[in-house]
Amino acid sequence: MAKKSIKKIGVLTSGGDSPGMNTAIRAVVRACSYYNIQCIGIKEGYHGLINNDMSELGPRSVKHIINRGGTFLKTARSQEFRTPEGRKKAFENFKLNELDALVVIGGDGSFTGASVFHKEFEVPFIGIPGTIDNDIFGTDATIGYDTALNTVIEAIDRIRDSATSHNRVFFVEVMGRDAGFIALNSGIASGAQDILIPEKKDSLEELLQTLERSQQAGKNSSIIVVAEGEELGNVYDLAKATQKKFPEYDIRVTVLGHIQRGGSPTCQDRVLASRLGVAAVEAILEGKSNLMAGLRSNKVVYTPIEEAIKKHNQIDEELIKVAKILAI
Amino acid sequence: MAKKSIKKIGVLTSGGDSPGMNTAIRAVVRACSYYNIQCIGIKEGYHGLINNDMSELGPRSVKHIINRGGTFLKTARSQEFRTPEGRKKAFENFKLNELDALVVIGGDGSFTGASVFHKEFEVPFIGIPGTIDNDIFGTDATIGYDTALNTVIEAIDRIRDSATSHNRVFFVEVMGRDAGFIALNSGIASGAQDILIPEKKDSLEELLQTLERSQQAGKNSSIIVVAEGEELGNVYDLAKATQKKFPEYDIRVTVLGHIQRGGSPTCQDRVLASRLGVAAVEAILEGKSNLMAGLRSNKVVYTPIEEAIKKHNQIDEELIKVAKILAI
Amino acid sequence: MAKKSIKKIGVLTSGGDSPGMNTAIRAVVRACSYYNIQCIGIKEGYHGLINNDMSELGPRSVKHIINRGGTFLKTARSQEFRTPEGRKKAFENFKLNELDALVVIGGDGSFTGASVFHKEFEVPFIGIPGTIDNDIFGTDATIGYDTALNTVIEAIDRIRDSATSHNRVFFVEVMGRDAGFIALNSGIASGAQDILIPEKKDSLEELLQTLERSQQAGKNSSIIVVAEGEELGNVYDLAKATQKKFPEYDIRVTVLGHIQRGGSPTCQDRVLASRLGVAAVEAILEGKSNLMAGLRSNKVVYTPIEEAIKKHNQIDEELIKVAKILAI
Amino acid sequence: MAKKSIKKIGVLTSGGDSPGMNTAIRAVVRACSYYNIQCIGIKEGYHGLINNDMSELGPRSVKHIINRGGTFLKTARSQEFRTPEGRKKAFENFKLNELDALVVIGGDGSFTGASVFHKEFEVPFIGIPGTIDNDIFGTDATIGYDTALNTVIEAIDRIRDSATSHNRVFFVEVMGRDAGFIALNSGIASGAQDILIPEKKDSLEELLQTLERSQQAGKNSSIIVVAEGEELGNVYDLAKATQKKFPEYDIRVTVLGHIQRGGSPTCQDRVLASRLGVAAVEAILEGKSNLMAGLRSNKVVYTPIEEAIKKHNQIDEELIKVAKILAI
Repeated sequence: MAKKSIKKIGVLTSGGDSPGMNTAIRAVVRACSYYNIQCIGIKEGYHGLINNDMSELGPRSVKHIINRGGTFLKTARSQEFRTPEGRKKAFENFKLNELDALVVIGGDGSFTGASVFHKEFEVPFIGIPGTIDNDIFGTDATIGYDTALNTVIEAIDRIRDSATSHNRVFFVEVMGRDAGFIALNSGIASGAQDILIPEKKDSLEELLQTLERSQQAGKNSSIIVVAEGEELGNVYDLAKATQKKFPEYDIRVTVLGHIQRGGSPTCQDRVLASRLGVAAVEAILEGKSNLMAGLRSNKVVYTPIEEAIKKHNQIDEELIKVAKILAI
Repeated sequence: MAKKSIKKIGVLTSGGDSPGMNTAIRAVVRACSYYNIQCIGIKEGYHGLINNDMSELGPRSVKHIINRGGTFLKTARSQEFRTPEGRKKAFENFKLNELDALVVIGGDGSFTGASVFHKEFEVPFIGIPGTIDNDIFGTDATIGYDTALNTVIEAIDRIRDSATSHNRVFFVEVMGRDAGFIALNSGIASGAQDILIPEKKDSLEELLQTLERSQQAGKNSSIIVVAEGEELGNVYDLAKATQKKFPEYDIRVTVLGHIQRGGSPTCQDRVLASRLGVAAVEAILEGKSNLMAGLRSNKVVYTPIEEAIKKHNQIDEELIKVAKILAI
Repeated sequence: MAKKSIKKIGVLTSGGDSPGMNTAIRAVVRACSYYNIQCIGIKEGYHGLINNDMSELGPRSVKHIINRGGTFLKTARSQEFRTPEGRKKAFENFKLNELDALVVIGGDGSFTGASVFHKEFEVPFIGIPGTIDNDIFGTDATIGYDTALNTVIEAIDRIRDSATSHNRVFFVEVMGRDAGFIALNSGIASGAQDILIPEKKDSLEELLQTLERSQQAGKNSSIIVVAEGEELGNVYDLAKATQKKFPEYDIRVTVLGHIQRGGSPTCQDRVLASRLGVAAVEAILEGKSNLMAGLRSNKVVYTPIEEAIKKHNQIDEELIKVAKILAI
Repeated sequence: MAKKSIKKIGVLTSGGDSPGMNTAIRAVVRACSYYNIQCIGIKEGYHGLINNDMSELGPRSVKHIINRGGTFLKTARSQEFRTPEGRKKAFENFKLNELDALVVIGGDGSFTGASVFHKEFEVPFIGIPGTIDNDIFGTDATIGYDTALNTVIEAIDRIRDSATSHNRVFFVEVMGRDAGFIALNSGIASGAQDILIPEKKDSLEELLQTLERSQQAGKNSSIIVVAEGEELGNVYDLAKATQKKFPEYDIRVTVLGHIQRGGSPTCQDRVLASRLGVAAVEAILEGKSNLMAGLRSNKVVYTPIEEAIKKHNQIDEELIKVAKILAI
């Protein structure tokens, strides 16, 4: 498709919500205004394209959202967009509203949708990584990850007060889908006795030995952080197995759940969202497409969308070593 | 028993932990020092009396704990203290350490223990209400209640960000044992669509109608707060029943769990704990016993321990009305 | 004026802002809807009446503001409203918009304005106490006071980390206008060495002795909390005088400033605002006027506005005693 | 000096305190235990070396400090250590206690001291960057920086509630010594209208134009963030100059002060402190010295101490551009 000049950009948030999405929308809107192009906010992810649910956004539309969790455009996982008919409808509205390109804020599922949409209709787009799981290649951190980490450690700090008052063992399950970033970092930061993540081969036996050793070392209470994608089992099963081996232990379980998705974004998430929102608009104005804007080594970089979807950041072995040493 | 002069007071925390217990211990310790009597910190509630696990505490022993959740003396629910033999051992250590009286920080279970202990051995004691459930008669608020309320609303504020981004219905379970104070107040404060508490006769049908009406009124997301003692059922059952009636709703469940027990106490809890700690020591010095120090209408009052144990504060009907009006 | 039926209530926020004002507006709006009357939101306090800057508010107008600090109607101190001409204009707009009564959320300055307005034009009104200073008679706490207290102790907890790391003496100034409630309660809750409030006769000599004694007792760091209305002088003067007497002390000063006015309201402030918002609307519907809705001993009460303006809550001597004992 | 085997490491915190120092100490202590060497905690920075104020620390000595701000070893700026006699005394105690190496947690002032100490007495040491200012070369972030950023944005979020309620212009001064990292990042994250940092050439005229333009664009309130090292002047002078030009503006000033130094460290600071604490001990065991352990591009790196002291991280021009675009 011949490169035409960009006059109107649509922005949407798709997939699971994460703190900082609002800040990213704000950055896209204001960057558009700064560069004298129009910005259209599309409601509920790809649903808004399919149902023609969108409206113009200007700088004053996004005042006071910089510190609000969630996304005021709302988000969704659109089954209809996964169908050719759905995408056809979406493209008709894309044209009807005279959009020239899309900024897609979401995770790899949302990027996959945009990629297919581009293949079919040559719709230019730039992706911005918005998810708490931090499982997107092409960026050191996704928007929402830092906030989720801090939500988790605040929760574990509270649980710890209770654990140490009672000489209890607490199993705490945290989010992350199939990744262990949240579990590993929050586990180190909250002094967990053990951290179970999908990327590491764990065994129930080792876990039980770790608990036994820590009791012998004089620790009366312990926190075990378990990633939701952990293969050994969910926290309830692990707690049961532990209780069976050590009937005298006082064991409790907490699944942190959806508090991890919300809250006012941290400074790092707000700055990341701001930088990537601007970077996405600038990339579109330069005629780029099929890229994800990310931050690596504190510099804005653009990664081909297929890599962003398929590749994964690796868990740092050094972090696993540090976790082990500090649990002594 | 002839009133002898008080030279040494023992202080212990018993039952479930709550934020502000440390602040209360600090107040007892420093009030003792101010009035030139010794203070002995007893470890792990009544266990410490039974196992002679206690040590002297002075003003410098409690520096830097004013804002720490939990209890550094630890707490426990002592089965052994429920037995005559256990209490006999406890009394022997009480005499061995030359204690003259006890300050017992805990809930009604702990007060019951102290009451029996007094009947058997005439051990003078004053109780201080430490529990997040706020279900103790003789005080408008228990130490830890205000902090738990704020922990809950912070969590629900986060959940709400996610609920509104996704058009979801969230069932949130909060603590309170058989009382609905936490659920009702946090429900009002977080804009819950409905609040289910043990003190109110709820019905599944009404809940489903409430949800249906709110959707019709234009609300795309809702929070339902459920007290753990709710008779209708636990949050998982309620969510299932709702999903069955409304298959198109996107429903999630969160059980907040033990984060409600910990965290840095709020200002109100720190001031309450400080006032009651001082009041307990002063009461003992005046030769009083079998009383619970509490705060009613912002004044320190002493309530006979049997009333504190048996009676209950009533849920204010006005609050229930306010919750209903504001959920419109 | 003959009592006519109430069909339309105007609500405004006036004077200094405080956390919970938004929550109170929300309660007024939804109570109006519940009772089938219209609610008009007046912008910028009395300015909105004078400049006819107001618009209708319904339940959906106030979604998502329950946990937001500040007031979305904005506030102001209107000089023009203090003049007969200004109030005449205001009354003309009051009639033009067919308002039947006003809910005035603010402090005693705002109530004075409403009282005069009523005398001149018989405009029925109910006041709701919104100010962080807690200096309004007729309520145990004003809307915003509890949040300000917690903002202060969070700040002092941070300062304390630095003070204890460095063996420093910190003077911290807090708000309160001429009242010492914030200083006294936050001082107790943050373990202040001394607390200077207008209601107590302080002397520089006593302060210096207190500091000397605490150093001798082994305390290497101290926090002195000073109310902004303290007569002895401002924190800079006090710090200078202390440095002169003790040149070897490491002394720092912090004036907390306007962080005390903002932030998400605490649970207590949200519930208070909700109850009083509903109570104000109900009072108006019952034909009442010239009253302030407040909460005393956890019950909604109405106080004649002249008393609310003129009288003052007293500082509890017991609190001053507790502060002294615990600073040992 | 011939490499002798390491058996005993001393750790100290020096210079200004910062959140995460405790977490770093904990990591050093536990890493020593893991590698079977002794760890000695030195009190009050270099003072402890000079006055022989130190004691052994084991894993249980540092339980429960992972989330505590400040440094339990205390810190100081030792004038005596700047003298040859002082350092001579320090070395004598170094030998007396049979220390083999030092871990110095602090800023460039502390590293300079260690560097001179090494030159004179060949004391092996590794530095860990602990300061909120983020002005140390060799690490993307210093320990305490992320926490300070979040403390600042929480404060500005509160101030913003008040600013928008009142149509006010707020000048907020933040720390950073001669660096603008805190101001720039917190300014972007809190939606500041303008950000004044030492690294950028600002002019009063531009500031006043910026304010005028924003008022014309419909913004009724503004936040101006000013770094403490800003050359244009301090916040009071800038506020005065602005008031003079715009007498109708409602202007307030807040100097955030020492709240920026304290508080529970964020997840990022805790993980950073943990990784660098372990890295420092490992470096010493490998016979390294005169290096600072830091994190760059998420990998642990060691930088020659002279570079860490003399060089500076540059302010990213892209961040300045983003700030400008988003202030539209």
